[in-house]
Amino acid sequence: MQSIQQQPTFILVRPQLAENIGAVARAMANFGLSQLRVINPLCNLLDEKAVATAAGAEHLLHQASVFDSIEAATADLQWLYGTCATQRHMIKEYIPLPLAMTKVMTQLAQHTVGILFGPERTGLGNDILSRCHQIIQIPVDPDFSSINLAQAVILTGYEWFKQTQDLHILLNCGETTLATQGNLQRFLDDLEQALDRANYWREPHKKPLMWQNLQNIFTRLQLTEQDLRSLRGVFQSLTRNQTK
Amino acid sequence: MQSIQQQPTFILVRPQLAENIGAVARAMANFGLSQLRVINPLCNLLDEKAVATAAGAEHLLHQASVFDSIEAATADLQWLYGTCATQRHMIKEYIPLPLAMTKVMTQLAQHTVGILFGPERTGLGNDILSRCHQIIQIPVDPDFSSINLAQAVILTGYEWFKQTQDLHILLNCGETTLATQGNLQRFLDDLEQALDRANYWREPHKKPLMWQNLQNIFTRLQLTEQDLRSLRGVFQSLTRNQTK
Repeated sequence: MQSIQQQPTFILVRPQLAENIGAVARAMANFGLSQLRVINPLCNLLDEKAVATAAGAEHLLHQASVFDSIEAATADLQWLYGTCATQRHMIKEYIPLPLAMTKVMTQLAQHTVGILFGPERTGLGNDILSRCHQIIQIPVDPDFSSINLAQAVILTGYEWFKQTQDLHILLNCGETTLATQGNLQRFLDDLEQALDRANYWREPHKKPLMWQNLQNIFTRLQLTEQDLRSLRGVFQSLTRNQTK
Repeated sequence: MQSIQQQPTFILVRPQLAENIGAVARAMANFGLSQLRVINPLCNLLDEKAVATAAGAEHLLHQASVFDSIEAATADLQWLYGTCATQRHMIKEYIPLPLAMTKVMTQLAQHTVGILFGPERTGLGNDILSRCHQIIQIPVDPDFSSINLAQAVILTGYEWFKQTQDLHILLNCGETTLATQGNLQRFLDDLEQALDRANYWREPHKKPLMWQNLQNIFTRLQLTEQDLRSLRGVFQSLTRNQTK
């Protein structure tokens, strides 16, 4: 048995425009994909327009395999998906792109997977779609569903890449760190005392609620140690000016 | 209070190339988005290259509002996101695109939301990013992270559109329907009898397992009523030839 590919093979069927092939290469590189096959391209894969839109990913154009038939291009692949933005009149299972890529990620542990993309003007023909196990449907507004070849590849590559990533929200602190509660408390204590001295509260019975609201602003900020130093500097500077 | 927009406003900051602005319009139309603002474009929004790449979405170019400053372009918006593919040296919360769009969908019920996209060559500058509440990070391969302006808009629009959709796998049956278990059973019974007559099983004790495997093929197929008729025709035709 042949070695198992860890990524899907993208197969362009009769692409027309060199700039689209270049944009496909760029998008594949953006999403860590390198397995590109092209069936009967109507232009040169190394055309200068292709190289220009590849924007640094022209190695994918050099590595791409060119075939003269769907049979030759897919002979070694085990699972075949077609892509389209609208449904055809064909008894076929349509699977939305994000769900499809979850499935592809699972399949790749066991099978080789090819994903077919049709020519710019027409998309995949029914002759090709009838060879596919399932059709990947790219969700678009049905009232404006014409998407570009490169767009289809971008979205498919993106959904595949997401499967490989552990995405999480990150507070980028750079050289500093999120402030400890102790340091935040000292900052708040100093601010409270400064506001006491400045007679900020005016009506003392209102202070508890006013102070609670102010504390909420500063805790919502997710302040770092550096932020605390900056804000201390700001308040000290304003206090100095005030007492002059 | 102004009426609440039900979709995010996309704001292009100093876009350079007309073809990218057109591609942005096309992508927005693909994903049902229409709120486009442009700050200090370096080209004409209605340039023929923009209209060509808009590919039918030039109404978005006509409707787009042009501003001469970030302040003017965002004055009425309540929540502001910047987009970028790589992290900057800035104390800021980075939120991956898919999570961000889940949040945007929730926010839109209550707030107006703007999403900023930077110039092609440089992306958003730190001066703009420092005005944003959060940074949307588009997941790309860190080794090849340069993405096109239109690509960033395509991916952002796509993730937003997905939030509005109920995505599910669909067996497209066209004019026919999935076969009932009764009709499938009659088809299988007839096939079994035909195989009995043809002495397909050879060793009778092997029949139960062989038949189970064959049944698995036909149930896996998710056959429609039309498929059943087609397969009946196939088997009848082969049986006729066999008995000649």
